[in-house]
Amino acid sequence: MHRVKVRVVEGLLDANDTIARANRADFDRAGVRVVNFMSAPGAGKTTLLEAVVQSLPGVRVGVLEGDVQGTLDAARLASLHVPVAQVNTDPGFGGECHLDANMVRSALPSLPLDGLDLLIIENVGNLVCPAEFRVGEDVRVMVASVTEGEDKPLKYPLMFRACDLVLVNKIDLLPHLDYDLDLFLHHLDQVHPGVERLLVSARTGEGVDAWRAWLTTLATRGRAIA
Amino acid sequence: MHRVKVRVVEGLLDANDTIARANRADFDRAGVRVVNFMSAPGAGKTTLLEAVVQSLPGVRVGVLEGDVQGTLDAARLASLHVPVAQVNTDPGFGGECHLDANMVRSALPSLPLDGLDLLIIENVGNLVCPAEFRVGEDVRVMVASVTEGEDKPLKYPLMFRACDLVLVNKIDLLPHLDYDLDLFLHHLDQVHPGVERLLVSARTGEGVDAWRAWLTTLATRGRAIA
Repeated sequence: MHRVKVRVVEGLLDANDTIARANRADFDRAGVRVVNFMSAPGAGKTTLLEAVVQSLPGVRVGVLEGDVQGTLDAARLASLHVPVAQVNTDPGFGGECHLDANMVRSALPSLPLDGLDLLIIENVGNLVCPAEFRVGEDVRVMVASVTEGEDKPLKYPLMFRACDLVLVNKIDLLPHLDYDLDLFLHHLDQVHPGVERLLVSARTGEGVDAWRAWLTTLATRGRAIA
Repeated sequence: MHRVKVRVVEGLLDANDTIARANRADFDRAGVRVVNFMSAPGAGKTTLLEAVVQSLPGVRVGVLEGDVQGTLDAARLASLHVPVAQVNTDPGFGGECHLDANMVRSALPSLPLDGLDLLIIENVGNLVCPAEFRVGEDVRVMVASVTEGEDKPLKYPLMFRACDLVLVNKIDLLPHLDYDLDLFLHHLDQVHPGVERLLVSARTGEGVDAWRAWLTTLATRGRAIA
């Protein structure tokens, strides 16, 4: 069974990459920079978006929400008056655990790409498969909550290796946890040496300015190239 | 692409169920009760096992550890002198996000099934796919950490619907979170009305006695039937 499965999956990944390149071409044509935003469930992706989408100077932001089911996060972001499209992955078979390029493609017509500078694709909460499927993004950003423990880079190395920025979130909880931040950063550097990281708390706002600046630089750099 | 994919996956799930039944038969023959133990990454599965595996009265416990990569959790549990087997899912293709029946089957020869009353299978940290693959278990237990937010039952309904017990973990952090426990329980009852739940803190030990009692009852009931 396993060999057949590997071959099927390789075929799916090839097909995925072809569609990802088509997405990429559409994004480039529209001059929009794209973030594939990933984390475990409940690490704080949506809250970290709520904190910044209205306050990026001169950057027009849109969001594509990926969830197995429901529109809870999309509703939270739409209430902030940014364009939001929702993809639900459950029509597949009991629910896909990641976005693929085709799902993202299906949602693009409902977003005003030409009127955006930055599109943030909030992936399904999962530390494994989202890292395996390119969707046409420029960069991958992941959120690692300090409540998840120090060992996660070692246990989910592909995700930590695939990303361009790690947001270490919920640092306001550090005094209440048995969590060794230095050990986490050591593990992070073991699997992805020197990867950019920001310490943040969506709850207290600590580090959110730096996250905002990072996104603004990304979107602006996009504009200079376009 | 999608229809082909659904057909392929349905085939894989059928094959999986056949192997799950073979596992089940082996477990019954050995008189061992089996828990499929699931959660998001970092919700506290391993810590909740460390808290109980040595202190279940008259119950001989074994653990099967599923991880994408590494043996960190297996080492933690082996140091407590319980039989532990490790399955790594990464030989598949960049890492499978769940255990399937065949992976579990491959690890059974390294466990002394006849000398166990209770086998706990710690699945890969993921709220989607582990719920789709039966591995031959008697019951499914999931851990939901209060740090993950109140909305998770609505966003990952299959997982919450599939389980027989929900451990609501890290309740020691409640004073430091904007988390409405009643709202979480309301959402839980929306997707799985009346499902058993225990409020626990692996860190302070609150609720761990009830978790221990639950497992002891399960293993004892197993013995009475066998």
